[in-house]
Amino acid sequence: MRKIRLTLEFDGTGYAGWQIQANGIAVQQVVEEALEKVVGHPIRVIASGRTDAGVHAKGLVAHFQIDKDLPLGAFREGVNRFLPREIAVWDAREVGPGFHARYDARGKWYRYQIWNDPIRSPLTARAAWHVSARLDLPAMRSGAAMLVGRHDFQAFRTAGCDAKTTIREIFSLSVQQAESLVIVDVKGEGYLRNMVRVMVGTLVGVGLKKREPEEIARLLMGEAGLRAGPTAPPHGLCLMEVWYD
Amino acid sequence: MRKIRLTLEFDGTGYAGWQIQANGIAVQQVVEEALEKVVGHPIRVIASGRTDAGVHAKGLVAHFQIDKDLPLGAFREGVNRFLPREIAVWDAREVGPGFHARYDARGKWYRYQIWNDPIRSPLTARAAWHVSARLDLPAMRSGAAMLVGRHDFQAFRTAGCDAKTTIREIFSLSVQQAESLVIVDVKGEGYLRNMVRVMVGTLVGVGLKKREPEEIARLLMGEAGLRAGPTAPPHGLCLMEVWYD
Repeated sequence: MRKIRLTLEFDGTGYAGWQIQANGIAVQQVVEEALEKVVGHPIRVIASGRTDAGVHAKGLVAHFQIDKDLPLGAFREGVNRFLPREIAVWDAREVGPGFHARYDARGKWYRYQIWNDPIRSPLTARAAWHVSARLDLPAMRSGAAMLVGRHDFQAFRTAGCDAKTTIREIFSLSVQQAESLVIVDVKGEGYLRNMVRVMVGTLVGVGLKKREPEEIARLLMGEAGLRAGPTAPPHGLCLMEVWYD
Repeated sequence: MRKIRLTLEFDGTGYAGWQIQANGIAVQQVVEEALEKVVGHPIRVIASGRTDAGVHAKGLVAHFQIDKDLPLGAFREGVNRFLPREIAVWDAREVGPGFHARYDARGKWYRYQIWNDPIRSPLTARAAWHVSARLDLPAMRSGAAMLVGRHDFQAFRTAGCDAKTTIREIFSLSVQQAESLVIVDVKGEGYLRNMVRVMVGTLVGVGLKKREPEEIARLLMGEAGLRAGPTAPPHGLCLMEVWYD
């Protein structure tokens, strides 16, 4: 048995997320079908984590097992030939038998893009949340600084999150601007369900002066009656990179 | 009569270009229908030039006449409300009665994007031409330098071009790289039909070592038997800006 690790990029616009489910086409399903065409039998692919419907990825990592002696090129150029234009394999390499794309992940980098301008931008509409009113970036950065570190992120998740513990570590969280585009980069060890989108939605609330930056600290303390959010829409989010030892 | 000048951005992916024609939906048609909904009667919009099917724009300029006393906001926020997400009005301003978006244009900036990597990139696929083999950028820059200036661009147009003269001036032509993305910026007084795409296709031929950079000079001299091209595909091209006095 060989274990192959893939790195994938995809435009999630038309997809129901990574994981196979009842409604909509999942990226996983399309990748597994392309792999089956190359190797000749069904393949189950396990990813670093699920991504929500509409979320994009530049560096999602996944693995699968195979007993055929195919060259690695078959899993990159070969599979790409059967993938639609919205999905591509960037890298394929052989890993040790113990490797697991999900359990071995040591951290992930997510990027969230906001188009902050009174006028929406058709050329960035697929990959950025349009926020019309001017955002106060220094206030957002004050709030972002409070999220960095090891905290209980119970307030920053959505219904359906079944994580055993809600403690997570955020390594860094930056808010940068390039003309009308605001780029939020989050690097952390792991995330609760919708945690990045809830953090971004909360920070946008701060940027719009609907919240004080200090509310972030109170949310992390679990203050009763205080709610995070809203959950920022999925199309602004992109999984940039997953780290392993 | 008032004359209004609009600046438009659009993702040209699904459109048959700017100009109304028999097959496919033109951007012009969609903009005119949105304007009609705002002003209550048909409006004819005249643009700085036609753009081909699939070409994008960040700053196409157009004008129209109207006798109603509507505030300028009606032509920006108002019209945007009736436009699909792929098209937006960036700016609306009143201009003098003599203004003409096409005849008064003094120059245009086009950007052409090339994704130069063995693996295609789903997240840039809508706005960049995928060229797998490594491009020699210094060679492309040598070729590009020959195109700058006032020349007879007869060799750099496609069938159907009905321009009276084929002399044009290119102000500048730069070839830059940001990781796998190669960005070609062309600034010039005006262009023949498909001229930017033929120039880019010819420069890519130089970058792939299929042509010597010096062939560009020979093409400009009108050497018999030598042909420019191929015509680079439309989806890598974006009209960035149109200049007026």
